[in-house]
Amino acid sequence: MPSLTRIEQALEAALATATTPGCAPLLAAAVRHAVFPGGARIRPRLCLAVARACGDDQPALSDAAAVALELLHCASLVHDDLPCFDDATTRRGQASVHSAFGERLAVLAGDALIVLPFQVLARAGTAAPARLAAVLTTVAGSVGMPGGIVAGQAWECEPQVSLQQYHREKTGSLFEAATVAGAQAAGGDAEAWRGLGSWLGEAYQSADDLRDVLADAQHLGKPTGRDAALGRPSIARERGLPAAMRHFDMLVRQAVDAVPDCPGAPMLRALVRSEAERLVPAQMAAPLRAAA
Amino acid sequence: MPSLTRIEQALEAALATATTPGCAPLLAAAVRHAVFPGGARIRPRLCLAVARACGDDQPALSDAAAVALELLHCASLVHDDLPCFDDATTRRGQASVHSAFGERLAVLAGDALIVLPFQVLARAGTAAPARLAAVLTTVAGSVGMPGGIVAGQAWECEPQVSLQQYHREKTGSLFEAATVAGAQAAGGDAEAWRGLGSWLGEAYQSADDLRDVLADAQHLGKPTGRDAALGRPSIARERGLPAAMRHFDMLVRQAVDAVPDCPGAPMLRALVRSEAERLVPAQMAAPLRAAA
Repeated sequence: MPSLTRIEQALEAALATATTPGCAPLLAAAVRHAVFPGGARIRPRLCLAVARACGDDQPALSDAAAVALELLHCASLVHDDLPCFDDATTRRGQASVHSAFGERLAVLAGDALIVLPFQVLARAGTAAPARLAAVLTTVAGSVGMPGGIVAGQAWECEPQVSLQQYHREKTGSLFEAATVAGAQAAGGDAEAWRGLGSWLGEAYQSADDLRDVLADAQHLGKPTGRDAALGRPSIARERGLPAAMRHFDMLVRQAVDAVPDCPGAPMLRALVRSEAERLVPAQMAAPLRAAA
Repeated sequence: MPSLTRIEQALEAALATATTPGCAPLLAAAVRHAVFPGGARIRPRLCLAVARACGDDQPALSDAAAVALELLHCASLVHDDLPCFDDATTRRGQASVHSAFGERLAVLAGDALIVLPFQVLARAGTAAPARLAAVLTTVAGSVGMPGGIVAGQAWECEPQVSLQQYHREKTGSLFEAATVAGAQAAGGDAEAWRGLGSWLGEAYQSADDLRDVLADAQHLGKPTGRDAALGRPSIARERGLPAAMRHFDMLVRQAVDAVPDCPGAPMLRALVRSEAERLVPAQMAAPLRAAA
């Protein structure tokens, strides 16, 4: 089964267990709105690609790890879009959850989407108890304190911010968890895979930063220029667009180089390169590279 | 070690792992503010009491389950107090988290307190892998969808609400999880302990409902009369205070009767009775019982 189909089916199965008949219906609708239709699903794709490179001998646990990371990503988007943070009215080309369902249901939908990953892991972990604790440690650590998404987002509330730490925690943590948990779910050598996720996560945030300055609101499906409006740390603003482009290219090279030699290595290197092209299309990158 | 000391030490240890140096300091302070000083810690006390009644042969896992439930309770209070829900300025006699730290840090502190339980369980579960999935299922289910705290809270956003379902999900779920997870952590018969938590949870919400109508703001340390102000379902408003008192007494009797016969049974029955007296003191209860 191609990964994307496998991911959508696993996400559907996870939501089906959460939004059973009798569940508060508006919450169920808000949660579904936050997860479908999805974005690029890059985190779960990365997680499954690594699990496959490591043998994928417990596919239900690989699926659970992949789904968990995507749901946590969706949760962070819902809470980031709240009026007290980005106050974004659109997301992925449709109304943001708080715009469509109100602020209260957006808070609760985000909460539910933080919990559901652990319900999914518990279910899959029953059949693979020896691997559950490691996967759980990775997934929970990627979103919690001291260094996960939530901790990263909290730097936006601090007077002094390290740009690198902010990026690493807010975005890098989930990418790193995708490669580490993918390896752990399949019984692979988790540490050998950490670098790939770490570099790709930095590249991703770097691209977001570039696009935030460059792109128009229609192209991204969400309001842009918000980093500047909110006074957030940004390499593109601090060092200029050509330098930010050079930084992005360097991060992508590091990610490609970090793929360990294994039967799945060519597929993974191709995934990194195609993702880089999706993030910063050639027509956007070329003039910046020329100016560098 | 007396339970309450053991619980505070385990909570301190959990927060120490989350709020390490280098972590976003305002978030660390907000999380600490939400957990200390605590309330009655009834959920973790109940969890540990059941674990002890079942032998408590994996005390680190019992501690983790107890801490997890208390942290989830704290998380729900932080998000319930947000401006879009109760807009409560005080909690446990001090400023609520959003009053003290602002709305953004209150959202994030609640999020972090939803994740931390799973980090704590992952750590303890490494040494007890055979029991981890069951405890994780119970803890995650008590807060998530379709029937946990978050789902219960979501009924406040629905036009049609079942009073019983609202109470069971918003409050009962965590009490039920306390007894079930306590038994699971100690390798006991979890289903035999479900009834105690379920009845006690209903009694607790029933007492909250009674006190919300009866008590003044100073006594509870938080604003009261809010159920009425927010148009929430309430037995005391629907059937009157004497009927609500009768209902509470019945629930406490059911909880006492639900304690399975075991060496710890007298201690547990005494815990239920003392908790009932704490929730609805005799001087509050007597006139209502007389009026019934």
